Formats: sequence, C-alpha cells, structure tokens
Amino acid sequence: MKLADKVLEGDIRAAAKLMRAIEDESTSAIDELCAIYPHTGKAYIVGLTGAPGVGKSTLINNLINVFRTKGIKIGVVAVDPTSPFTGGAILGDRVRMQQHGLDEDVFIRSMATRGWMGGLAKATLGMLHVMDAMGKDIIMVETVGVGQSEVEIAKVADTSILVLSPASGDEMQMIKAGIMEIADIFVVNKADRGGAENIAGAIEFMLSMKTYLPGDWRPCTILCEAVYGKGSEQLVTEILKHKDYMTSCGLLERRRKERARLEVNEAIEGSIASFMHQSLENGGEIEKLVDEVAQRSCDPTSAALKIIEQFSKRFHTTQE
Amino acid sequence: MKLADKVLEGDIRAAAKLMRAIEDESTSAIDELCAIYPHTGKAYIVGLTGAPGVGKSTLINNLINVFRTKGIKIGVVAVDPTSPFTGGAILGDRVRMQQHGLDEDVFIRSMATRGWMGGLAKATLGMLHVMDAMGKDIIMVETVGVGQSEVEIAKVADTSILVLSPASGDEMQMIKAGIMEIADIFVVNKADRGGAENIAGAIEFMLSMKTYLPGDWRPCTILCEAVYGKGSEQLVTEILKHKDYMTSCGLLERRRKERARLEVNEAIEGSIASFMHQSLENGGEIEKLVDEVAQRSCDPTSAALKIIEQFSKRFHTTQE
Repeated sequence: MKLADKVLEGDIRAAAKLMRAIEDESTSAIDELCAIYPHTGKAYIVGLTGAPGVGKSTLINNLINVFRTKGIKIGVVAVDPTSPFTGGAILGDRVRMQQHGLDEDVFIRSMATRGWMGGLAKATLGMLHVMDAMGKDIIMVETVGVGQSEVEIAKVADTSILVLSPASGDEMQMIKAGIMEIADIFVVNKADRGGAENIAGAIEFMLSMKTYLPGDWRPCTILCEAVYGKGSEQLVTEILKHKDYMTSCGLLERRRKERARLEVNEAIEGSIASFMHQSLENGGEIEKLVDEVAQRSCDPTSAALKIIEQFSKRFHTTQE
Repeated sequence: MKLADKVLEGDIRAAAKLMRAIEDESTSAIDELCAIYPHTGKAYIVGLTGAPGVGKSTLINNLINVFRTKGIKIGVVAVDPTSPFTGGAILGDRVRMQQHGLDEDVFIRSMATRGWMGGLAKATLGMLHVMDAMGKDIIMVETVGVGQSEVEIAKVADTSILVLSPASGDEMQMIKAGIMEIADIFVVNKADRGGAENIAGAIEFMLSMKTYLPGDWRPCTILCEAVYGKGSEQLVTEILKHKDYMTSCGLLERRRKERARLEVNEAIEGSIASFMHQSLENGGEIEKLVDEVAQRSCDPTSAALKIIEQFSKRFHTTQE
C-alpha cells in the first residue's frame, strides 16, 4: 500500500511507478488502485479525439499553457498510438517534457503499445485515477477515435472535444463512427489552410439539424491554428463554460456513472480473463473445449456456457 | 433454422439477412450461427491491414480479379471504418458492387458503424462463418489495424498482409503497435511514389535482424501500384505460397485454434454482458453497485466480484 500513500501525497516518482504497474497489469496495481480509489472523483476529464496528424498534441501543449496561467493543475494521458507523446514513451521522456518538464503541476503520461493490445480502457481509467489522486484538476485524454476501446473512453469524458483539420479528410469517417455525436466542442485546427471554413460550415449545418431545448448544451466550433497558439484561449474558455454547464445541470454525475459502469465491466472481464488464463496454465479443460470448437465438434456458444459454468462453480468454491 | 439451411445452399439473400441479424446482435443469429458452425472451417482467411488511404480496397479489388481467373470463390469482410466498402454500407451497395456485382462467387460485406462500437471481433467472426458456409474458398478481411479488436482479428487470420504506402507515414506507428510482427507478407503500395524503396528497405532491414530457422516462413515485400493493377499477380502467388506453407507445416491448425479461442472469449463476454443488461432492465442490484462505484463508496474490483457472484448464482439457478 506504500505506493498509494505516496501518490496521495503527490509523489511523482511513486505515481510513475504505479502507472507502469497498471500498464504491466501487475496484480499489485489492483490493490494500489483500490486504495486510492476512495480519494478520486475530483478531477475533470477532457477527451480530445481526432485522426492522426490533425495536431492534437500541439493543441494540448497550448491548452496546458493557458490552463497553467489560471493555476489549474493538469494531467495528460495520450492513448493515441500515433501521438508524439506516445512516441516519447519509446524515444525517451525528453522530447515531450521539454516544455512542461520543470512544472510540477503538469503530468504527461502516454500509453505504451502494450496497453492498447488489450485492456486499453481499463489501463486508461487506471491512469486517470492516479492523476486524480495526485490532485490534478483537469486531465486531458488524447485518442485517435478509432477502435472500440477508444470510443468507449471518449464517450465517458466529462467534456468531449473533436479535433478536425482540412488536411485530415476523415470527417465523413468520424461522422460514420458516431464520434461526431458525442462531441461537446468542435475544433477545426490548421484553420489557415484552405477548406477549414467548409468543415466548420459542415459541422454547423449538422448541428442545425438537431433540436436543442432551452438549457441544452449546443456544441460550438472553434477555429484554431495550434502551431501559432491561435484559438487556445477561446478553447479553454469554452471548456470551462462546458464544465460549469455539466456541473450545474447534473449531467456530470451521469457521465461519472457511465465511467463507473465502464470500469466495473472492465473489472469483470479482467477477472474472467484471469480465470481463463489460470485454467489454461493448469493444463485445462478449457483448452480441450477450445480444441473442440476449432475442430467444429462444439460451437463457440455452447463452449462459452460450459466455461461459465466451470467458472461459477470454482468461484463458489473459493468464496466459501 | 431456415436461414442457416438456405445459407448452406449458397442462397445470397439468406446470407445477407443472416449477416444483418449478426450485426444487429439479434438472438436468432446465435442459433443460426450454431446451426451453420459444424459446416464451417473450410475457408482460408486472409487479413489485409493498413492505415486509411494506403489503397487496401483497390488492392482487394485487384486480388479478387486474379483469384477469380483461377476459379477461386471469394468473400470480403471490410472492417475498416474508413473503407470505401464500409462507405458502401451507407451510400448503398451500388458503388462497391459495380465491378463484381454480376459475379455470384464474389461476396463483399462491410461492417456498419454499429458493429465496431461493440462486439466487433464477434460480429466479424460471424460474417466469416456465413461466407465460409456459403462455400467461399478465400475470405479477405480488411482492417485499419488500430484498436484492440482489430488487432485481435488481424492476429487470427491464416495469412496476414500488412499494406504500407509512401504517403501514409504510419510505418513507425505500425511497428510500435506490434502489427509488423504478425505480418506474413508486406505490401508497399503506391510504389511509383517517392519513398517506396525506403520503406521496402526498412522492412527488409527489420526482417534481416530476425533469425529464421530452415523451414520457417520469411516474409517478403511486394511492391504494388494497385490503381494500375501492378503487383497483384505476384501478391496472389505469394498468398497461395503462404497458404501451402501454413497447411503443410501444421501452423494452419494452430491459427484456427487461436481463432476458436477468440470466439469462445467473445461468446463468454457476450453472455455476461447480456446478463448485466437484463439485470439493468430489471431495476437491478447491479445499477446500485455502479452508483456506489461512481460515488466512491465501493471500488470497481470489489463491485465486479459481487456482480460475478450474483451472475454465478443466477446461472446455477437457471441451469438446474
């Protein structure tokens, strides 16, 4: 439990260590997370989603600058496998720490490859808890918005920002993926390039087709040029405005409940996966069932039912 | 069961109907899939993975042409959310059917948005079974290679092809994501553009660092210009060569077992998810637990254990 206590005191090295344990899916991480869990739930989660190359990382860097002038403590979790932050996890921490490296109130963490090959949502939520327990006020989560886990994460952010750019050409795909529908704020980055106004126009047209009741949040579109820092102030203002809205209308509680639900689901899946894994190592009846499925003498659904039965039997035995 | 019988007779409309039921996660689909399952396992699965815009769909179109001249019956499942095939699911079937629409032995199916918001792997495997039961010899699965489910699918293909292009610039990300490691064949598409040889060189360098024992499959790199049909013949030859290798060395059986394992896992998750959903509709104790987690009076791991206990109790009651 020592690590958890240190994290609660804001110990950066302890936090980094716990995050590594979460990513490695070590069993100690589960205990530590349980220990810090009662102290979490204070941080505000901002999701930034967008295709690779739209400039999310540059934008996040700008947002950090603006938030810091307001004394807001910041955490960043980069889930984007193509993010320079993530690249930093391999190339060393130097690059990404350059700008905010001396600021104790900024903590940037990227998910290494391993994380998103399995249990991505679970690991990301773990990272959020650690930063939350460290006392970060706002935590930004960067995702590319493709893949099931990514969408799940984007859906449970308190404020969801969709970043588009004239260069990406992925607008239609984002619409199809249903990501458009969950955005609270739209950002058109690289606004100096041709086509930015078309994208902004398309978003506005799309929004104009929806019916907003009085008191509903109507997403707005912000034009940014992240490389020149343009638009960041306005974006921060809009984020804080949405934060106020979420808090005052009770929606914040609902999003948090959805996050709790996602987390419970991940824990259930994890628990069953570890049972399967154990059984596999024990020479396992499960292995025999998988063989039968591969050979078509049993179908997957029947095999699943048999395994659940075994699991529930074993579970009852260990619980008694 | 009528649908399953018709599918086994090769009825295209019945197959399309069953695929829609799979995507809608209707309970009838599970029964139909169980009915066709014993008749599957004959088709050979070729996975094509690559970033959006590398030209996977054009390449697949070319491959279909070459396979058809050899009398090979083809199925295509497009999981890529940015694929023109997938676009076809919204824009209507006309565009993607244009070229092969009159050929009864080509069946192309894209996964609609819904599919990849949840249960992507499960639905994709279902599509494969339907095409397999219809008598397709080779089924190609197109994925963008980001996201957990996508990687899972790519890993269980019999032959995995990684498609790169000088324009994509995602090579480093693919390496990091571990997709490079599972590829049996590398394709550098848009080979007429500058930089293609650099990519091919980088792949060869990477491969040269690995140790291949006699009898091991050593991936090769094929340069293609899909828009002009260049390289497709060579690629088909290489796919069939790898198919022979997989069959003769017993690896095919191993991949199929991994596919069965993935499918059993998906069935278990589905069964638990539907239990959770039912409980939610019944006013549920689970809902109370999620509330407690959201309010930090219970941690996710403890909540998961309680839910599993309830599930296993209920499971025992219904089984008796």
